[in-house]
Amino acid sequence: MNPLSPTARTRLGRLPERSSTDRSVLYEILDDGMICHLGLIVDGSPRVIPTAYGRLDDTLYLHGSTGASSLRAGPSQDICVTVTHLDGLVLARSLFHHSINYRSAIVYGTPRPADGDEKLTGLRVITEQLTPGQWDVARHPDRKELAGVSVLALSLDEASVKVRQGPPGDEEEDYALDVWAGVLPVTQTFGAPAPDPLLRPGIPIPGHITQRVTS
Amino acid sequence: MNPLSPTARTRLGRLPERSSTDRSVLYEILDDGMICHLGLIVDGSPRVIPTAYGRLDDTLYLHGSTGASSLRAGPSQDICVTVTHLDGLVLARSLFHHSINYRSAIVYGTPRPADGDEKLTGLRVITEQLTPGQWDVARHPDRKELAGVSVLALSLDEASVKVRQGPPGDEEEDYALDVWAGVLPVTQTFGAPAPDPLLRPGIPIPGHITQRVTS
Repeated sequence: MNPLSPTARTRLGRLPERSSTDRSVLYEILDDGMICHLGLIVDGSPRVIPTAYGRLDDTLYLHGSTGASSLRAGPSQDICVTVTHLDGLVLARSLFHHSINYRSAIVYGTPRPADGDEKLTGLRVITEQLTPGQWDVARHPDRKELAGVSVLALSLDEASVKVRQGPPGDEEEDYALDVWAGVLPVTQTFGAPAPDPLLRPGIPIPGHITQRVTS
Repeated sequence: MNPLSPTARTRLGRLPERSSTDRSVLYEILDDGMICHLGLIVDGSPRVIPTAYGRLDDTLYLHGSTGASSLRAGPSQDICVTVTHLDGLVLARSLFHHSINYRSAIVYGTPRPADGDEKLTGLRVITEQLTPGQWDVARHPDRKELAGVSVLALSLDEASVKVRQGPPGDEEEDYALDVWAGVLPVTQTFGAPAPDPLLRPGIPIPGHITQRVTS
């Protein structure tokens, strides 16, 4: 697995000790997420749109319907895709040292449309990223539906990751203060599945969904 | 409270029925979040950075240290700030109608640096957005610490919100399929606070933190 090579865009200016060039860390951060924030330039202004994505090897597939008009309209253009996990609030003795425990990945590049067989692959990868097991149970898209969605493929050639974990670090003299310090963990959890009011009776919740529910 | 007026940037192309011009919806979405995704243009490329923020009336304060080098370096420039809540995975009978329940706010504008008293106000607002009650217990920044952070102020003049909630909508003929359909709710929850290993004995976890823990 080749390491992440810093480019002018991915080299970290601030707190470089929080970066990693380990490609497996990039994979973990991307695989753990459900939505990304897609950045692009529209009429000279930056725009940031939340959208669904999935990873297959060194390709990121993006669901292109949301905001795709902007991407389809112009020629191929640079985008930035960011996936962030908020893992905890870091509460220090001084406000200055308050922080956030997080893992984030930033990917730069020019996406290409995924067409033909690759479009179906991309949709499968995006579906399975959000709900593993779902591709095998729901009805697959027909020709007309396939034509109605767009999928973008972005290579993971240019990416950076940044991770902050652990307790706060305070100024030496502040450890004597009578202030509680530590981390308040933040997690994304799944609640009880809510059946569609129009669900036909007798259809049980499938195992790949019930097993995700946080007990 | 004046409504959100559509501009060329905030007018929604796709699924306009998911938009709202109700400013109170914008406030709710912003007030519910802990991090935003800040989009800016650096050397001609879009860049999306997660960062902390807070809202006071019609001003968004952004913690400017992360990525601030890019913002400080150039002249004042357009940015885009997006806050997204992932509320649920919408599982339909057909893959085409799979969706995500979410609430998102997108704010456009040119931020100005918050200086002097307003810098302190901005830091308070950002701190209280992440951990309400924390400003009153931790040591406040001294002059040197204040100089070491930057705070940006962005007006909520140009913003849009988009919300999707509720069950899936399937094609008429698919309701007969033997496929479970519904929503898997997603929530952000707080775990048990982890005290700093260097915490002096006898300092209890304050009530404003324990009360946030999901029971």
